[in-house]
Amino acid sequence: MKKAFLQLTSTFILGSALTACVNTAQQETTLRATGDMGVIIERATGQVQIVNHTSKTILSEVDGLGDLSHASIVYSRDQRYAYVFGRDGGLTKIDILKDKIDNRVIQSGNSIGGAISQDGKLVAVSNYTPGGVKVFDSETLETVAIIDSTVLQGKPLNKDGSQVRSKVVGLVDAPNNRFIFSLFDSHEIWVADFSGREAGEEMKLTKFTDIGYFPYDALISPDGRYYIAGLFGEDGMALLDLWHMEKGVTRILKDYGKGDKKLPVYKMPHLEGWAMAGDYAFMPAVGQHKVLVVNTKTWQQVAEIPAHSQPIFVMAQPDNRQIWVNFAYPDNNTIQVFNTETFELVKTLTPGPAVLHMEFTPRGEHVWMSVRDSNEIHVYDTKTQQLLKTMPSKSPSGIFFTNRAHHIGL
Amino acid sequence: MKKAFLQLTSTFILGSALTACVNTAQQETTLRATGDMGVIIERATGQVQIVNHTSKTILSEVDGLGDLSHASIVYSRDQRYAYVFGRDGGLTKIDILKDKIDNRVIQSGNSIGGAISQDGKLVAVSNYTPGGVKVFDSETLETVAIIDSTVLQGKPLNKDGSQVRSKVVGLVDAPNNRFIFSLFDSHEIWVADFSGREAGEEMKLTKFTDIGYFPYDALISPDGRYYIAGLFGEDGMALLDLWHMEKGVTRILKDYGKGDKKLPVYKMPHLEGWAMAGDYAFMPAVGQHKVLVVNTKTWQQVAEIPAHSQPIFVMAQPDNRQIWVNFAYPDNNTIQVFNTETFELVKTLTPGPAVLHMEFTPRGEHVWMSVRDSNEIHVYDTKTQQLLKTMPSKSPSGIFFTNRAHHIGL
Repeated sequence: MKKAFLQLTSTFILGSALTACVNTAQQETTLRATGDMGVIIERATGQVQIVNHTSKTILSEVDGLGDLSHASIVYSRDQRYAYVFGRDGGLTKIDILKDKIDNRVIQSGNSIGGAISQDGKLVAVSNYTPGGVKVFDSETLETVAIIDSTVLQGKPLNKDGSQVRSKVVGLVDAPNNRFIFSLFDSHEIWVADFSGREAGEEMKLTKFTDIGYFPYDALISPDGRYYIAGLFGEDGMALLDLWHMEKGVTRILKDYGKGDKKLPVYKMPHLEGWAMAGDYAFMPAVGQHKVLVVNTKTWQQVAEIPAHSQPIFVMAQPDNRQIWVNFAYPDNNTIQVFNTETFELVKTLTPGPAVLHMEFTPRGEHVWMSVRDSNEIHVYDTKTQQLLKTMPSKSPSGIFFTNRAHHIGL
Repeated sequence: MKKAFLQLTSTFILGSALTACVNTAQQETTLRATGDMGVIIERATGQVQIVNHTSKTILSEVDGLGDLSHASIVYSRDQRYAYVFGRDGGLTKIDILKDKIDNRVIQSGNSIGGAISQDGKLVAVSNYTPGGVKVFDSETLETVAIIDSTVLQGKPLNKDGSQVRSKVVGLVDAPNNRFIFSLFDSHEIWVADFSGREAGEEMKLTKFTDIGYFPYDALISPDGRYYIAGLFGEDGMALLDLWHMEKGVTRILKDYGKGDKKLPVYKMPHLEGWAMAGDYAFMPAVGQHKVLVVNTKTWQQVAEIPAHSQPIFVMAQPDNRQIWVNFAYPDNNTIQVFNTETFELVKTLTPGPAVLHMEFTPRGEHVWMSVRDSNEIHVYDTKTQQLLKTMPSKSPSGIFFTNRAHHIGL
């Protein structure tokens, strides 16, 4: 009896132990540093791909992320977790070392974009419905703060009886644990300051009103000083100098926009795509076949570069030597590369239907592109503009590499 | 018999399996992302500490690195491996996921500093004896290229009968897999171009001669465009525009140096410490109690900031809002913080004896300092300049965080 018992026990332990061995083997295989990794949005299937940009390979795929239209990603400061902001209000925390969802909450009905605080402890999401910003503990995804946006007076109530509030767009992080965002319908820019949180202080909210009609998107300069919002309802842009909030929001680039021509605009350009190289910002013109060159000291346009079609993203290589431009539908099969010094066209590429997004490797030797309608990721050499590799992906859109963890405003 | 055999087998497997379980547990504990890690040089004991800057903790210590005076570190593009350049010619590759030496070679008799190529495949080391640069495969540390520096004619031969060659200093990486370095004794700057290596082409070497007397250190601008060498033998600096190598090396800042006053210079300042913020470079004056403010468009000095003593490192926070300055012996117990906009002194700190190096967290909320002679690492909040934590370290010098992997020239 005793022997039988022992045998049973050993078999049982053996079973567990073998499971452990399998885990060990898996872990050995997946022992990873996270400096050369990234996550790609597969928008049609609610999935993401986890990738490695040294080996140019797809490591795994994670399911169950909901509606990923216009989804974007920020990273934890250790580069282990990707926070995916879905369109359906889903906030999903993915563990890229374990290739799985670590946590997921549905935090609103309709959201667009998010940001992570300088200290990495807070994740903020900007919402359309109900309008406002929600702030979460980056570790647990528990709610830390709810910042309701301005009520739109005179609007019919929401179905649930609540008042309609302004949509929030252009949410970014800034130094000292601040989040900056724009209120589309109420024409405001707000600064939410969490810098005193560790000392037990409340969040401080600063509101700038009448900043211009319908801010639709925004960017922050790489040093976290200038917040610039594009305006859908008028020409020009709104600038907030975060080193001098007392000066308020000023208007710059008064001709930037649709102007008198009222051109058919197929898609408003993305402002996050602004390339800042030296004293110049290279900006997508609205509705025109041009890239604008603007002096960032005077905020005057100094040149314009003729382009293939209406630009959407204008991205500078990390060495600032060239800009890479994609275009609005129906010309979104094309990429153009320009020299930032001479403004000359270096090359026109046609990767395929619907080139939606580009991401440079951290030191800029390669650029990855999502070619949505051919279900492919392309990797190009930036110096030669030669295609190095093609990988399968299901309707890929945004590509986000982990080095974003270390940048202000990304 | 059969039963006994089975028992024996199961016991044997069980033993192995339990070992596997222990490994599993260890691996679970050490499952790490590498975005918030770093390595600190403990110069007196030939050791390094592996640290985490989110938890502000020392994770482990690695022995056996030889002479670590003036040692520096670069990281592999995945942020898993730290390449430590020792003074005794040792090149050590440390696996920061496994807390151990992965590989180590003694590649020369006396070396100073190194760099890693844009694609991460090549590690270069600059040598005093024998003078030149050696280039290694970053994976295997096998020699890829030996670039002998210029022979110094008329010098007595080395003990081994070989000719004396110029010492090499100021080695940095530049875009397109290039390494740039200065030849101290022969007054040259060389560019070694490995951009054709993947296509089977030979390395191309471009030599600039008569660049100024005794270049002693150098820096490269964050976009990889400007290489600037300080001159020990005369005033002024040597500038090479890598976008326009055809223009050759030009002389800038003709008054930079010791000037006519021939002040006692306790230590030549480190050029890697130059802070570039907006249009200004904040530079340590040589031998004077000043930080110089230079316009980087015109290379003219526009202001000078009185400081506590002779500055060594002048470092800008990642948000460019403040510069942090340390000083030469005997005033190296002090740190001063200045505002980059008003040039005002924000605070004077006295962390302790021999504050040798500072490193900012990637988005700049904290700064780590090595206080060599009190055997401590200090962590300060950059906004409040308050000391947050002190950790023990044996004669710490350089502190290097992994986000350097993603920067050109670091």
